[in-house]
Amino acid sequence: MVAPPRASPTARPPIRSGAEYIESLRGRGLKVYLFGERVEEPVDHPLIRPSINAVAATYDLAAKDPDLATAQSSLSGKRVNRFLQIAESVDDVVGQNKMQRRLGQLTGTCFQRCVGMDAINALYSVTFEIDAEHGTPYHERLKSFIRMAQEENLVIGGAMTDPKGDRGKGPSEQADPDVFVHIVERRDTGVVIRGAKAHQTGCINSHWILVMPTMRLQERDRDYAVVCAIPVEDPGLSFIYGRQSCDTRSMEGGSIDQGNAQYSGQEALIVLEDVFVPWERVFMCGETAYAAPLVERFTAYHRRSYVCKTGVGDVLIGAAATIADYNGVPRASHIRDKLVEMTHLNETIYGAGIASSYESKPTPAGNYQNDDLLANVCKHNVTRFPYEMGRLAQDIAGGLVATLPSEKDFRSPETGPLLQKFLHGREGVSTENRIRVLRLIENMTLGRNAVGYLTESMHGAGSPQAQRIQIARQMNLDEKMDLAKHLAGVVEGEPDE
Amino acid sequence: MVAPPRASPTARPPIRSGAEYIESLRGRGLKVYLFGERVEEPVDHPLIRPSINAVAATYDLAAKDPDLATAQSSLSGKRVNRFLQIAESVDDVVGQNKMQRRLGQLTGTCFQRCVGMDAINALYSVTFEIDAEHGTPYHERLKSFIRMAQEENLVIGGAMTDPKGDRGKGPSEQADPDVFVHIVERRDTGVVIRGAKAHQTGCINSHWILVMPTMRLQERDRDYAVVCAIPVEDPGLSFIYGRQSCDTRSMEGGSIDQGNAQYSGQEALIVLEDVFVPWERVFMCGETAYAAPLVERFTAYHRRSYVCKTGVGDVLIGAAATIADYNGVPRASHIRDKLVEMTHLNETIYGAGIASSYESKPTPAGNYQNDDLLANVCKHNVTRFPYEMGRLAQDIAGGLVATLPSEKDFRSPETGPLLQKFLHGREGVSTENRIRVLRLIENMTLGRNAVGYLTESMHGAGSPQAQRIQIARQMNLDEKMDLAKHLAGVVEGEPDE
Amino acid sequence: MVAPPRASPTARPPIRSGAEYIESLRGRGLKVYLFGERVEEPVDHPLIRPSINAVAATYDLAAKDPDLATAQSSLSGKRVNRFLQIAESVDDVVGQNKMQRRLGQLTGTCFQRCVGMDAINALYSVTFEIDAEHGTPYHERLKSFIRMAQEENLVIGGAMTDPKGDRGKGPSEQADPDVFVHIVERRDTGVVIRGAKAHQTGCINSHWILVMPTMRLQERDRDYAVVCAIPVEDPGLSFIYGRQSCDTRSMEGGSIDQGNAQYSGQEALIVLEDVFVPWERVFMCGETAYAAPLVERFTAYHRRSYVCKTGVGDVLIGAAATIADYNGVPRASHIRDKLVEMTHLNETIYGAGIASSYESKPTPAGNYQNDDLLANVCKHNVTRFPYEMGRLAQDIAGGLVATLPSEKDFRSPETGPLLQKFLHGREGVSTENRIRVLRLIENMTLGRNAVGYLTESMHGAGSPQAQRIQIARQMNLDEKMDLAKHLAGVVEGEPDE
Amino acid sequence: MVAPPRASPTARPPIRSGAEYIESLRGRGLKVYLFGERVEEPVDHPLIRPSINAVAATYDLAAKDPDLATAQSSLSGKRVNRFLQIAESVDDVVGQNKMQRRLGQLTGTCFQRCVGMDAINALYSVTFEIDAEHGTPYHERLKSFIRMAQEENLVIGGAMTDPKGDRGKGPSEQADPDVFVHIVERRDTGVVIRGAKAHQTGCINSHWILVMPTMRLQERDRDYAVVCAIPVEDPGLSFIYGRQSCDTRSMEGGSIDQGNAQYSGQEALIVLEDVFVPWERVFMCGETAYAAPLVERFTAYHRRSYVCKTGVGDVLIGAAATIADYNGVPRASHIRDKLVEMTHLNETIYGAGIASSYESKPTPAGNYQNDDLLANVCKHNVTRFPYEMGRLAQDIAGGLVATLPSEKDFRSPETGPLLQKFLHGREGVSTENRIRVLRLIENMTLGRNAVGYLTESMHGAGSPQAQRIQIARQMNLDEKMDLAKHLAGVVEGEPDE
Repeated sequence: MVAPPRASPTARPPIRSGAEYIESLRGRGLKVYLFGERVEEPVDHPLIRPSINAVAATYDLAAKDPDLATAQSSLSGKRVNRFLQIAESVDDVVGQNKMQRRLGQLTGTCFQRCVGMDAINALYSVTFEIDAEHGTPYHERLKSFIRMAQEENLVIGGAMTDPKGDRGKGPSEQADPDVFVHIVERRDTGVVIRGAKAHQTGCINSHWILVMPTMRLQERDRDYAVVCAIPVEDPGLSFIYGRQSCDTRSMEGGSIDQGNAQYSGQEALIVLEDVFVPWERVFMCGETAYAAPLVERFTAYHRRSYVCKTGVGDVLIGAAATIADYNGVPRASHIRDKLVEMTHLNETIYGAGIASSYESKPTPAGNYQNDDLLANVCKHNVTRFPYEMGRLAQDIAGGLVATLPSEKDFRSPETGPLLQKFLHGREGVSTENRIRVLRLIENMTLGRNAVGYLTESMHGAGSPQAQRIQIARQMNLDEKMDLAKHLAGVVEGEPDE
Repeated sequence: MVAPPRASPTARPPIRSGAEYIESLRGRGLKVYLFGERVEEPVDHPLIRPSINAVAATYDLAAKDPDLATAQSSLSGKRVNRFLQIAESVDDVVGQNKMQRRLGQLTGTCFQRCVGMDAINALYSVTFEIDAEHGTPYHERLKSFIRMAQEENLVIGGAMTDPKGDRGKGPSEQADPDVFVHIVERRDTGVVIRGAKAHQTGCINSHWILVMPTMRLQERDRDYAVVCAIPVEDPGLSFIYGRQSCDTRSMEGGSIDQGNAQYSGQEALIVLEDVFVPWERVFMCGETAYAAPLVERFTAYHRRSYVCKTGVGDVLIGAAATIADYNGVPRASHIRDKLVEMTHLNETIYGAGIASSYESKPTPAGNYQNDDLLANVCKHNVTRFPYEMGRLAQDIAGGLVATLPSEKDFRSPETGPLLQKFLHGREGVSTENRIRVLRLIENMTLGRNAVGYLTESMHGAGSPQAQRIQIARQMNLDEKMDLAKHLAGVVEGEPDE
Repeated sequence: MVAPPRASPTARPPIRSGAEYIESLRGRGLKVYLFGERVEEPVDHPLIRPSINAVAATYDLAAKDPDLATAQSSLSGKRVNRFLQIAESVDDVVGQNKMQRRLGQLTGTCFQRCVGMDAINALYSVTFEIDAEHGTPYHERLKSFIRMAQEENLVIGGAMTDPKGDRGKGPSEQADPDVFVHIVERRDTGVVIRGAKAHQTGCINSHWILVMPTMRLQERDRDYAVVCAIPVEDPGLSFIYGRQSCDTRSMEGGSIDQGNAQYSGQEALIVLEDVFVPWERVFMCGETAYAAPLVERFTAYHRRSYVCKTGVGDVLIGAAATIADYNGVPRASHIRDKLVEMTHLNETIYGAGIASSYESKPTPAGNYQNDDLLANVCKHNVTRFPYEMGRLAQDIAGGLVATLPSEKDFRSPETGPLLQKFLHGREGVSTENRIRVLRLIENMTLGRNAVGYLTESMHGAGSPQAQRIQIARQMNLDEKMDLAKHLAGVVEGEPDE
Repeated sequence: MVAPPRASPTARPPIRSGAEYIESLRGRGLKVYLFGERVEEPVDHPLIRPSINAVAATYDLAAKDPDLATAQSSLSGKRVNRFLQIAESVDDVVGQNKMQRRLGQLTGTCFQRCVGMDAINALYSVTFEIDAEHGTPYHERLKSFIRMAQEENLVIGGAMTDPKGDRGKGPSEQADPDVFVHIVERRDTGVVIRGAKAHQTGCINSHWILVMPTMRLQERDRDYAVVCAIPVEDPGLSFIYGRQSCDTRSMEGGSIDQGNAQYSGQEALIVLEDVFVPWERVFMCGETAYAAPLVERFTAYHRRSYVCKTGVGDVLIGAAATIADYNGVPRASHIRDKLVEMTHLNETIYGAGIASSYESKPTPAGNYQNDDLLANVCKHNVTRFPYEMGRLAQDIAGGLVATLPSEKDFRSPETGPLLQKFLHGREGVSTENRIRVLRLIENMTLGRNAVGYLTESMHGAGSPQAQRIQIARQMNLDEKMDLAKHLAGVVEGEPDE
């Protein structure tokens, strides 16, 4: 059984800063595996720490710019970190996007806290509707849970993606039932669940994880229709840390070759081995019909949350502009034109994202849900434009971005002076600064944060085809066909038909 | 001198419908030239009429869907056609976009009334600011003018684009001073202006034309800094009608070969030969410093007004889906995928456009001005995506879209039966309906409305390079460079720099 | 029965020039329908004539540049027009491409003679193989036919595309058997065929038409497996002329508004009403298994024949560069960059096309067949790049390209001087020349030759999806998967699989 | 002074295999620096070795498929490795491309030997022309050098790219004269040179390096106009090894996480400290006018040598197809369509490349030079399409490509079984094989070979703008403008101009 985590009756004081947040993660005894070994203390592991720093930035921004990164919650009656708020207005939904862009700018990576925000907002309306139909108590439980998290100012991660096994088969048809998370035992006091969640962003650095089904379920999949909150330190959880391109550069010492030494994302495989969850933290249990709405509302929120990538894009544009300056060619018309193109693509993503948020409508539960079609359009552009922006950044950077010697060569008495001499750019710019910016571009287009800026942009919140299916569902062809027929003078039902 | 137009002291009753609007255009004795001859009555000319019908649709929509196409004006205290309203809130600005999309859907073309709407809104804040600096009475005059137009429910056209002559020279440096509209005489009662305005959308079917400068002016260009309203029936005006692809099909009889027999756009060269304008209709006169703000605010509004093209895009998507259905292949995965792509591109335009409107902020004058960067991004996508959508529509349509025989062949007793036999699509669809939809696609991708959907999308409200310049101005590279330097660990000002 | 056409025993002297060719088309009594009426003499019809001129250019080029446009034929032992040669070497195949590009440059349109060239070349090897299997005399018949055409220097058109009716059904499953051309009677002296061929390029201005099946056939489709040559003046043929965008401008008088007054393409629906074909002109009759190879070899040739569009593209690039010059901005970096992009796209098409030709291999019959995969790649780029080049050309042209008044306004004493004054470009360029170039760009991007440059580029020789299917067939995934597995260290067949 | 290298009077027997080649690199005492330290024996360094293996593959292919990878040389009268041949026919030039594609397929990376091949071919004609003008003996010297290399079967690297310092200044204007390689002393027996060459592909694993100027030179740059051959073991050379994304995975042990454990590219900064070169290995010395032709001919060859990337592209297509199969979705239409698109893009590159080779023409020296315009077009597509292909491969791969745990976790008794259970794909496929293919895709799109497949595709042989400049030079606008003017009916020189 699980020892009472932070959500204890005697609530602890809220976390007030990034530093306090980092402290709150220590000593939890998590079972985190990396390079075949259990990690003593993840907080202090140089490869893991940058991903913790990125979450810490969400705390510091709330302190520094409360208008941007906090919001008033009628649940707790307090001003809370925006990541923990249930959106009560259009402005709240739009405010999420503006905060996301800023955090992308400040960290140059995935700050990992959106999944939880989008999950509690989607669950808010779904639990309301389940209860209305089934008389269940999920909505009140969820509100209590959120209120607690708000009061203690905790990080909630979301866990949706099951390993899925054979993609041609549904959850209850799999040879191995565990490839989708499911209930293995129902007790008076709660349920026991088992399975795994794959490539989970921001789990080890969360306080709680919200487990949710990954797809539309059939009646027969009742055991798979489970939503619940689990404390990250639950002993039934194991985390196998995902590798990222160039990840071990964080372990080499030095600060240059990482490109962005301070921040990175984090993804892990979470294995759930017979985890007990008491009823007060269970928010769906068997209501298969609500799996699809939950997934749809979550992805609607989450696909426009990818506006965060425009903040990361701002960094990449800035890096490209800086290296052009350092190379001595900032005024070349083709360089200028590529920076304009990068900006145009970046703002195109942003436009669709905030348009989706601005078009939010209240749900029956009272919170605000954004526009699904525009959210999918936003995300679909995110699966394309960052790649083109990365290509343009590499174009502007020049070939040196991929042939630079190591920081150690730069520091060596033998080779350092040679590199200082031969890798110098325009007058007034130090070679080291030039190398630092090149390493940042490498980091964002090939290295550790390319994982977040490119590959996760592709697959996070659903792969491109998932968006196309969702766009297809909402493209209202019948109505558009009527418009066309009307203007063409088509009269159907004529004798010759 | 000009006979008192509709803006007479004894105000006439407001126009209530498209039909009344069309009647209001009759008998004005305009000097309209087409194919080398003066047109007797433009309203009745088959080539011109479709462009009048498109404006009439703006009246009918206001009557049919007042929430969408009218708005409350505090100027006249009335609910007025939205094209005549000064935006008093964010919702008013967004409402323009939603109306524009709908009218694009209903007409499949340019309905030509946005220029005036965007012009009065831009002038509203600019005149306020001129008056604040110079103590001039422009703002009150403008309000009177708009109030009158609201009360009579008139169409205001905007005229901005001068012929420009040698593009390397400014207005007052030209060999021929008339290639930019300018003041040739200042009288006690008003000013006399001369020049021309090129490719003016929706002028012959307007009641009033707002003349505005086309670009940033220098101190020496004082005579060119003139804004004023002129009644379209002013005898000093001549209109030379622009040809459009396939325009004469409107004069052949029949209703098929035009593709969209009812609606089209309209563009003309307006020649102004010593037109007298009384002071009460002069809204700028010599304040050169305000030409640039006027152009910028107008283009900010107008570039996101191109959201109208998403309505036209809806028609094209609908036409493509219909012909796929008529061809018998609506379920083919590649067809479906192309329809999704068209929708994705169309909504990407829409997203940036309404995002720009949603981000509107109040001006010192109190009206709302949209976001400039996003407006430029919206328009810039409009210079790209409709071409790709047209390409995809032609792909889906099949080769017949460009090899169809004429309607007369279709009606002929000799060839009609052969065409009925051989051009038949899937069962249940008449050959005529199939041909009608193909002709609509031709109309929108090669024919008359391709002018509006493609070429005008390219150049209207400024050519692509104009948007790139404006994006460049607003891309805040310095700030982005700081973000990148910070993350890269760049410290500038080091000894070795 | 058919009166003996030019292929009579007493051979006539060869056609030596474009002018002689045009004369050869007169007085043939063809049943050509246009605008619901039979055309008296197509050669003299202003709407049809430009398409005849384009073919005439193929004669004149052969006279003027024999290295480029003629080739030595071992069939007749003569140097013949390259369009009539059976390729006897790699250089012959490549030579076709070089001639095609030049003719595209000279005419700015489709010169319509490639279908026949590609058809006789494909048939050459296919008939050889049919005969080898079935002991039929097709190959010798075909050689006689080609020899005759070479000696008289005739135009051979190809007719492949059947109307197809319900696309979900094969030829012999259709409700109306005539929607695919088929044999309705077999006589001792020949066969009688019936049906229609849709959107046939260059038929009315040919001397002979080669009828071929349009797709892979099943055993049951024996009557549809027919290839034969028919003289265009056969009384069983009717031609219903296809409309093109802006086609009637050719009938207005003047020479400006057409853009390209001299040249255009031509497409028609050919109806075959019980046409008798003597055996000596039948080259396939029932050998259904050879329909697919014929179509594949024809499309392999024909898809790289679209290199012609790079010649047309050269004209468009030239027009764009000219208007940039006339507008006074030829040095603007963004203009220059767009011209480079147009060139890059154009040459990319060219590269794949001639690569396909260079990779030609001899067939068992001894003639040379080009590479199929590269031919499809060439054509697939043709379905994309001309649209982008058209878009860029419109960008460079400026808005005037779609708002120009008519030539009649330009000639009118009232409006002409105004247009001269206001539409003048840079010093040293006449307004008329500026307008002429704008009209040419309109012609190629919206007008009559946009049909050939855009829509026919899309669908001619097979729509995009046809190329994708053919690329898929040849992409050798198994071999590529083996390469990848080898490098990844994959060992399949392990115990755990 | 330099100890006699392999090019000694008593020639050694030729290298016959990859294994012999690798042995030939041992014990050379090179000054190679990596991670701040001198590398004992580069051949045995796990990070360096894969780049040596890639060159070894060029030897093994020659042995295994001599038609593809060897050619007859009239210089030595022998069949030689194709990388050492001077192209004596069109087929020789095309043969280079076919060998390059195959080696790309076999290694999945840059095999680094093209620079030398392209350099000796460019020098062959340039030295001939210098000698013709100046009576110098460069051509014969070069022939002796090549003959020696052919006889011993050596690897010749090319070194062209100088560090360049301030890009706004020419070689002789730099504050530090060494940022371009230059002659510091002329002796009776030879010259002494100094400077550096940046991001040099395949230098440490070569036997000889050909030093060449990097750009057009002015008269005053005489000391910079130097071409010569230097043995890699010359004591005046130092090599500072460039880092690549994920490079240290080669040092971790195991074979999975590298993705492609066997092969990679190599790039280094070469520092030349007062290197003496005897006259017999000097091939240009002061003839500044020939620097530009040398660079142009070299880049003409080298830009179409990027056809190698289509071989690498074949591997990526194969990897994408394999992972689609392993994921259980190989038949999904969108997957299939993406594989077709990847193939289409890949073959488009190939088409332009081999077209350039096929269009080769003999030079005055007798060797064959490929078409410059098409070579630039080929390379320009290489700066675009691999990025899009990488994007599509990541799309097909799924998110796991960037979140996979390490091989050590996979081998660990604690986490291994969990990963086996949860990362299993479709039945019949081992988890390890699935992971291996995902790691290969990571390797090619983010990891070590992404450097070669993406960034080097961008900048190798000149950055995109270099190609655009070269395309601009050859786009013959004047001729194209004449074509357009002719068709538009433009008559220039009229009175009104």
